[in-house]
Amino acid sequence: MSDEIAENGTANGDVPEIELIIKASTIDGRRKGACLFCQEYFMDLYLLAELKTISLKVTTVDMQKPPPDFRTNFEATHPPILIDNGLAILENEKIERHIMKSVPGGHNLFVQDKEVASLIENLYSKLKLVLVRKDDQKSAALRSHLSRIDGLLERRGTRFLTGDTMCCFDCELMPRLQHIRVAGKYFVDFEIPTSFRALWRYMYHMYQLDAFTQSCPADQDIINHYKLQQALKMKKHEELETPTFTTSIPIDVSENSIAE
Amino acid sequence: MSDEIAENGTANGDVPEIELIIKASTIDGRRKGACLFCQEYFMDLYLLAELKTISLKVTTVDMQKPPPDFRTNFEATHPPILIDNGLAILENEKIERHIMKSVPGGHNLFVQDKEVASLIENLYSKLKLVLVRKDDQKSAALRSHLSRIDGLLERRGTRFLTGDTMCCFDCELMPRLQHIRVAGKYFVDFEIPTSFRALWRYMYHMYQLDAFTQSCPADQDIINHYKLQQALKMKKHEELETPTFTTSIPIDVSENSIAE
Repeated sequence: MSDEIAENGTANGDVPEIELIIKASTIDGRRKGACLFCQEYFMDLYLLAELKTISLKVTTVDMQKPPPDFRTNFEATHPPILIDNGLAILENEKIERHIMKSVPGGHNLFVQDKEVASLIENLYSKLKLVLVRKDDQKSAALRSHLSRIDGLLERRGTRFLTGDTMCCFDCELMPRLQHIRVAGKYFVDFEIPTSFRALWRYMYHMYQLDAFTQSCPADQDIINHYKLQQALKMKKHEELETPTFTTSIPIDVSENSIAE
Repeated sequence: MSDEIAENGTANGDVPEIELIIKASTIDGRRKGACLFCQEYFMDLYLLAELKTISLKVTTVDMQKPPPDFRTNFEATHPPILIDNGLAILENEKIERHIMKSVPGGHNLFVQDKEVASLIENLYSKLKLVLVRKDDQKSAALRSHLSRIDGLLERRGTRFLTGDTMCCFDCELMPRLQHIRVAGKYFVDFEIPTSFRALWRYMYHMYQLDAFTQSCPADQDIINHYKLQQALKMKKHEELETPTFTTSIPIDVSENSIAE
């Protein structure tokens, strides 16, 4: 386990202590990594810790050299991992469900809002498509999706997606917006248009919140996350090929033609 | 140490056994890697083993997971490593010097030829420049250098650089020509012109020789070698930066302007 532990709330007998294990940066094992689900659950739980319904302990694990006790306990499982009262929850959907059903205060985060739910669900896959290669059509699809989110925020006039307090959808959307902003700009010069004023206001509010700033990876970690993904993808290509040896030559130099 | 051991010559009392440790492929730890100096010394020693002045043992080491005894003996030293009679030689220049001065038959490989020596010495750095980014001027510089080598081979009319038998310069040049051919084509669509007939004849002869084919990495290993170099270079860039967090916003949404 890493030494970097963020504590919030009080670990007394009144509130349960929840531990969230998150991936460390691929640059510096002591920093937070650019793992979207880690940040999402970090934000959910941070909000609950602020409300003092739980005490939160966040542990970063460097997956490039996980400590022996991590390997013993979790083998090949990657963070996020939630630990509640000695029970480790390893799958994202189960973590979400556990926060909603079993963590004190959690049910308040899980607002029912079908419009918002369907509006944000495929946003991130559009970033992934844009990052594959600079392509005007894919950038336009991402921009158009952001425009619809901007439209909803404008129309509703609320500070956050479903009202003036944060909910699970904000914890899901904002880390992805940050990746779009930082990686989109770096890799394909994609920018969120300044005309999306309601969206920028939304981000402005997020940037003031501890739940976001405490959980947010550095720009360099976001960029490096996608660089490593691309490098692994590139490597895969050769790994799947049968080895070949280029030893043919493109001109006729048979023994006769080369004899002096 | 890997299991892949190539033996050549006889390990009897008459001739000394020389062990050369080379880097394994970064794709498959059992294959030979695309390390230029490893291949160069492999070829030198292979020629001596064919002449039966030594017996040669070649061991590949997967540097991504070096075996414990390799780490104990050599720590962070990377192959090539030459082992002669219990003595490990770790630096390239010292390996070359040892082959020339102390390995039986070695002095015959080290022909004096200033013209050839200066002709081939900066060829590889031109490939490195070409691989950084597709650039017509850099490609032209590499092509022009190859043209001068083609000219020398044409003028001399010999099978190899200094005569009709191989010498140390051939063991130096040919692995680099192969990298130029395979990586140049793959990354920047660089091709050795078919009009360089003497150079192609030279390569044709090399492709017939066990000393070359036994030591040559697969095309995929050459390509992957440069991909990993580029990925590491990309990674380095973020590693050297102070972490920054993009949380400024490009429009004015100060508390007053966003108040409802």
